[in-house]
Amino acid sequence: MSNYANSKLVEEKVFKDPVHRYVHVRDQVIWDLIGTKEFQRLRRIKQLGTSYLVFHGAEHSRFNHSLGVYEIVRRIVDDVFRGRPEWDESERLVALCAALLHDLGHGPFSHAFENVFHTDHEHYTREILLGNTEVNAVLRKVSEDFAERVALVIEKNYTNNIVVSLISSQIDADRMDYLQRDAYFTGVSYGHFDMERILRVIRPRQGQIVFKATGMHAIEDYIMSRYQMYLQIYFHPVSRSAETVLNLTLKRAKQLYDEGYQFKFDPIHFHSFFENRVTLEDYLALDENILLAYFQYWMDEEDAILKDLSRRFINRDLFAHVDLNPEEEPERYAWLIEQVRAQGFDPEYYVKPDSTSDLPYDFYRPGDKTTKKPIYLEMPSGEIRELSEQSHIVSAMANNIKVDYKVYYPKEIMFI
Amino acid sequence: MSNYANSKLVEEKVFKDPVHRYVHVRDQVIWDLIGTKEFQRLRRIKQLGTSYLVFHGAEHSRFNHSLGVYEIVRRIVDDVFRGRPEWDESERLVALCAALLHDLGHGPFSHAFENVFHTDHEHYTREILLGNTEVNAVLRKVSEDFAERVALVIEKNYTNNIVVSLISSQIDADRMDYLQRDAYFTGVSYGHFDMERILRVIRPRQGQIVFKATGMHAIEDYIMSRYQMYLQIYFHPVSRSAETVLNLTLKRAKQLYDEGYQFKFDPIHFHSFFENRVTLEDYLALDENILLAYFQYWMDEEDAILKDLSRRFINRDLFAHVDLNPEEEPERYAWLIEQVRAQGFDPEYYVKPDSTSDLPYDFYRPGDKTTKKPIYLEMPSGEIRELSEQSHIVSAMANNIKVDYKVYYPKEIMFI
Amino acid sequence: MSNYANSKLVEEKVFKDPVHRYVHVRDQVIWDLIGTKEFQRLRRIKQLGTSYLVFHGAEHSRFNHSLGVYEIVRRIVDDVFRGRPEWDESERLVALCAALLHDLGHGPFSHAFENVFHTDHEHYTREILLGNTEVNAVLRKVSEDFAERVALVIEKNYTNNIVVSLISSQIDADRMDYLQRDAYFTGVSYGHFDMERILRVIRPRQGQIVFKATGMHAIEDYIMSRYQMYLQIYFHPVSRSAETVLNLTLKRAKQLYDEGYQFKFDPIHFHSFFENRVTLEDYLALDENILLAYFQYWMDEEDAILKDLSRRFINRDLFAHVDLNPEEEPERYAWLIEQVRAQGFDPEYYVKPDSTSDLPYDFYRPGDKTTKKPIYLEMPSGEIRELSEQSHIVSAMANNIKVDYKVYYPKEIMFI
Amino acid sequence: MSNYANSKLVEEKVFKDPVHRYVHVRDQVIWDLIGTKEFQRLRRIKQLGTSYLVFHGAEHSRFNHSLGVYEIVRRIVDDVFRGRPEWDESERLVALCAALLHDLGHGPFSHAFENVFHTDHEHYTREILLGNTEVNAVLRKVSEDFAERVALVIEKNYTNNIVVSLISSQIDADRMDYLQRDAYFTGVSYGHFDMERILRVIRPRQGQIVFKATGMHAIEDYIMSRYQMYLQIYFHPVSRSAETVLNLTLKRAKQLYDEGYQFKFDPIHFHSFFENRVTLEDYLALDENILLAYFQYWMDEEDAILKDLSRRFINRDLFAHVDLNPEEEPERYAWLIEQVRAQGFDPEYYVKPDSTSDLPYDFYRPGDKTTKKPIYLEMPSGEIRELSEQSHIVSAMANNIKVDYKVYYPKEIMFI
Repeated sequence: MSNYANSKLVEEKVFKDPVHRYVHVRDQVIWDLIGTKEFQRLRRIKQLGTSYLVFHGAEHSRFNHSLGVYEIVRRIVDDVFRGRPEWDESERLVALCAALLHDLGHGPFSHAFENVFHTDHEHYTREILLGNTEVNAVLRKVSEDFAERVALVIEKNYTNNIVVSLISSQIDADRMDYLQRDAYFTGVSYGHFDMERILRVIRPRQGQIVFKATGMHAIEDYIMSRYQMYLQIYFHPVSRSAETVLNLTLKRAKQLYDEGYQFKFDPIHFHSFFENRVTLEDYLALDENILLAYFQYWMDEEDAILKDLSRRFINRDLFAHVDLNPEEEPERYAWLIEQVRAQGFDPEYYVKPDSTSDLPYDFYRPGDKTTKKPIYLEMPSGEIRELSEQSHIVSAMANNIKVDYKVYYPKEIMFI
Repeated sequence: MSNYANSKLVEEKVFKDPVHRYVHVRDQVIWDLIGTKEFQRLRRIKQLGTSYLVFHGAEHSRFNHSLGVYEIVRRIVDDVFRGRPEWDESERLVALCAALLHDLGHGPFSHAFENVFHTDHEHYTREILLGNTEVNAVLRKVSEDFAERVALVIEKNYTNNIVVSLISSQIDADRMDYLQRDAYFTGVSYGHFDMERILRVIRPRQGQIVFKATGMHAIEDYIMSRYQMYLQIYFHPVSRSAETVLNLTLKRAKQLYDEGYQFKFDPIHFHSFFENRVTLEDYLALDENILLAYFQYWMDEEDAILKDLSRRFINRDLFAHVDLNPEEEPERYAWLIEQVRAQGFDPEYYVKPDSTSDLPYDFYRPGDKTTKKPIYLEMPSGEIRELSEQSHIVSAMANNIKVDYKVYYPKEIMFI
Repeated sequence: MSNYANSKLVEEKVFKDPVHRYVHVRDQVIWDLIGTKEFQRLRRIKQLGTSYLVFHGAEHSRFNHSLGVYEIVRRIVDDVFRGRPEWDESERLVALCAALLHDLGHGPFSHAFENVFHTDHEHYTREILLGNTEVNAVLRKVSEDFAERVALVIEKNYTNNIVVSLISSQIDADRMDYLQRDAYFTGVSYGHFDMERILRVIRPRQGQIVFKATGMHAIEDYIMSRYQMYLQIYFHPVSRSAETVLNLTLKRAKQLYDEGYQFKFDPIHFHSFFENRVTLEDYLALDENILLAYFQYWMDEEDAILKDLSRRFINRDLFAHVDLNPEEEPERYAWLIEQVRAQGFDPEYYVKPDSTSDLPYDFYRPGDKTTKKPIYLEMPSGEIRELSEQSHIVSAMANNIKVDYKVYYPKEIMFI
Repeated sequence: MSNYANSKLVEEKVFKDPVHRYVHVRDQVIWDLIGTKEFQRLRRIKQLGTSYLVFHGAEHSRFNHSLGVYEIVRRIVDDVFRGRPEWDESERLVALCAALLHDLGHGPFSHAFENVFHTDHEHYTREILLGNTEVNAVLRKVSEDFAERVALVIEKNYTNNIVVSLISSQIDADRMDYLQRDAYFTGVSYGHFDMERILRVIRPRQGQIVFKATGMHAIEDYIMSRYQMYLQIYFHPVSRSAETVLNLTLKRAKQLYDEGYQFKFDPIHFHSFFENRVTLEDYLALDENILLAYFQYWMDEEDAILKDLSRRFINRDLFAHVDLNPEEEPERYAWLIEQVRAQGFDPEYYVKPDSTSDLPYDFYRPGDKTTKKPIYLEMPSGEIRELSEQSHIVSAMANNIKVDYKVYYPKEIMFI
């Protein structure tokens, strides 16, 4: 480790933050990372994608959220873990950096976007950390392998599982920040839970993170908050409608490009995406300003579908929806497609099924064979138990997930 | 008046708003206006311009704020004024529309932008209200002269002074919304005042707005909030630095265009601005997404100055400043310019004075011969008195305005 | 109905309230009721009994809460129900009065107190409403049978079930106020739910209260808040310990009186309670100030048990507890009693079992054959459904109630 | 210093606090002090005296506030001062104890009470600290002179001026807690200021406390909050009316006792107060429960004046007031007295002048030759300046204090 790893600012810097009041920075490394162009770019990526078209307050960026996750991890490692025998103080900086940088690879409206171009923000996070970037230059100053270590933490492959769990587990700094932050900016009352209490009971223990059982009710409340935020905000049918329109617009643009269509305004920032040969530089260049600028250019295109879809997104003239699972009701779905076609719309671009489990948000699913780590409680006896064994509310909620199937189509369609 | 003017939605619509909890819409006219593309465009103009580069939460748009101003006026006219003899109920709709639409003409980063291109957002508000727009189409359905009436209210030339004062006076719905909203999104504790109390004591009286004297302390608190918000947020030196860099970037682009410079990426959205022949359509097309997209394109231009300035803005590598009034200290200013030039920067683009009174925010200045209306109190006796006569705090504050002079220059400059 | 029933204050009066911001009073009847000595007496009865000994902020009175319940009902009837065909406007005043007065019969530390003296606050509410009181004098001015009508509403025997449900049902103004208020004063984060949303969807329908299904998630959140408040605040083991000590102190005083013990300071305010011949006047005279004054006098009594127990309560030197259900573990309970006796304490006054279902708080129990009315949702189709049919969270929670059994004993006991 | 001074709890204890979220206790000494009967007694003394009769939420006790002041000082010494060369770490414990115990000597409704009985809560604070009390027993365990040191800090005679200033200066932990706490419990919006910022800029410097000038606006806001809280809450005319009635009731009881009146219910707890021979034990025994219990007993006395005044207080049937300075308008005052007498009231007990400067709250008065320490700013240059030199708002406010004169009399008086 270089001296740089331990270098402190002469005076602590603070960012005024509406959720945590202040974000405190003392480490030179953190300060330098925040100043990099790749981190500043997160100001141009909205935290909640299209949700601002439903909840007008939700215009906050991933920059915002990334600072918040960092601040929570900083409080855990500096105020709670420091000095405890099961916490290795030399992991502090990698934990802070991973917290700050965990969303670095997100692109514009990630979910709708990745769907069309098969890019993967997790892949780009690694590219930015290890590639020819300002972020990498800072991390390399810490030590040769430091950027790789940060990447491993974010990818959940780091050897120290405690560090990984701080950033990604069923109750991590990422989720704790975004629930509170998204609740704050949307203005809904659901995202509240007693984070102070949770932070007080978090402990490193046997190579993982556990929570003293006295904090169980605060954790139940957090799980309930998550549940409500997903149902009320993240899965809101109108924000999914906007995602659908955005997705279809990009799909149409790609199709036109593939067909050799002559754009009035050459979409040079999309070329490599259309051709599936995206470089890191191309990826970083395409933020939400540029994506939305193209949508506005496309409102003047000749192609009627591209022109119409981009206009719908920009002017918020979104699609309507019905509750319909095409697999369960294929005739009804076919009939819907027929109605759309009969009224002059190409179903390829004007009918789209969507289900909430398509959305890459993970909900609480113990028993699911994915990588989700369960939440562990430390009983007064010292015994460790999985949360849903102790909490009948969590246990009840865990077994009750419904998938919500909808089909989106233009508002103008008159069913006959 | 058409039936349309009185047409109500079957069921009230609400917007979840973090500041007012809910924004309530019952009138078909209001609902239709919100849906127009010109109003939706306000989602693409930030309420606080460059402030988000200092207060990361301040990413909220003018769409947000416009709904808030509407909601405050709605509460005043529906909950407080309704039924009072000095309030003319037939003015209700024009008041609501003017509240909703008062910022309609704002462009991207208005202050820095208008400075270069000599556009005027107030002019464009009128253009949008009366031109060939969706907003105008809605307003015309109310009555022939309705759009003109709304414009007159916003321009403070409407005959009913009560309606004007609701939207623009020293204590109006506009200010009450933005202080609270900007405080909420930045997260500072200054913008709080007891709006509930102020709304309870507001009265139409003798053709103007007065406040029952029992609410005087709430108004003092509001004035103090304003004062603090200006000093702490609106005049923050770093956000002015960002405005300076933005302004100089645009100035450089215009200069290059004037000189016939060949842009790699033709700035077609700027042509009419550069040539000073902007149409309403051009104006509406240029929002913050497109402006910032060009800044990113310009980072790849050949011209070193344009390339550098746009990069500084995008990557938040802003200018430093000194406290300096060029008129009072011309030698020191000349010396500063010389230093900048000696270190290889063109002072035309790398030195810029700025004073807070340059910023078009109006501060509380009784006695000033501008159009600001004073705040009137209604004493228990029925007598009307000007606020600063009654409140020694306000009177003390009113006489104590300082102009803050700064000169901005690149951080790299080493003074020798 | 007299004119008095419709008489309005010249100017609306408001009370500053930390939970609802303001409580608004326009009706002369309500204003007069608030001024009665029986209503003012509620200032001397704490809302949460002994909870302030655990949550030091919980020092608020039933006066506080009663105004809050009134304000919620006022908002429902004036802002939501007014004008709806299924709401009978002539029921407005009786609803408001019942809301304001529903807790009028509460005495000092009701739960612990009623246990010893077999008084019943619901009985006294009726007595105060109909007896020779200032409250009755006000109500009689409205009409001959008005006091009786108010009593019937509070007792859930009123013919109009909508009015009853506003005050007492699984989701009524009483619960909505106390959850928020108790959360506010204790400072916990659990009591938050979106009351604004719930108030927006409440409807009179077919002689009962229903909630539009769009508000279901807000109701789920409210149910979760209740659950957490019960577990975290209302059933807190230390506040139950204080109740236990209080209960035993009163029991000892009664026993001594029955035995003819000569008190240093004659407990004249308790005579009729000890002798089970309490008049309304006696009941009203005994508030928490007087009860606690006696506890302080008793700290100087000769009787060692009375002296010790009262001292424990006043100085907060409370009992410890173990998890133990005497019926399930009779030997362990007997052993505990033996330990207490062996260490010199009379088990009659120094061992006491308590279970949370002993506490007269009602928890959500659909299926229970008590008087609790279920919560009904109105589906978009117009169909009415019971909440737990629609919400799997509520359904899961409804079947998962555990009784918590504890036995309290002096901290000094050393188990050997 | 004994080991006891440094003894820490095995696990940190926390109190849930609505203002500071949590109050943290790690020191055994602090924990033991909180458990003493003299400290627990503060639960029976309201923080705001009679204000709860105007602001119904203001029922909170001095126990509440004392924990809050402790918590603020704890944060300053542990989070800000620790490790700074100008802070003597050995002063930590005395600072914490003085913060916790600074209000220990307050009696019931101190202001109105001390006026009649010439007791002095500051005197009793010393008595409790040094007398035969549980508090003294704890403090003595720290060291022989520790109780005396705590007393000196509270009395502002301690040698280390930094410690004194934390507890009592123009901007100390006491004021910062009560402004926020009283605002919270009353529900008014005035008491907000950015304490986090103030705590960040507080520094020990040259034997006193200074604030970095970057925090000046937060301090201005705090001063404004104080000003508003005094005008709106602490000096509220109706709460002063209640104080007046309370004062006159006590005065009447004393007069009757002096005259040998036979009380139905012998006021033994007042004997030593009436006879001016109060012992520490007597003083500690008389809390608000007992005082108010006597008021209720007195409602049944024969003496018409005592009976009437006590009833007025208990049932909140308070006095009316006029703006009148008896010294400036002696004839008008004499006329008022005459009116009261003519309508059958004894002016000795039914007319009482009151001025806000009579109330022992100190307002910000630089230049006043009292003991108030000014607030000092540390300029970026290192220079120390007095606040009002730098802040024109504070300077303006400092010179603008008005005394508010009122005369209180029964509501029933009809002026003719």
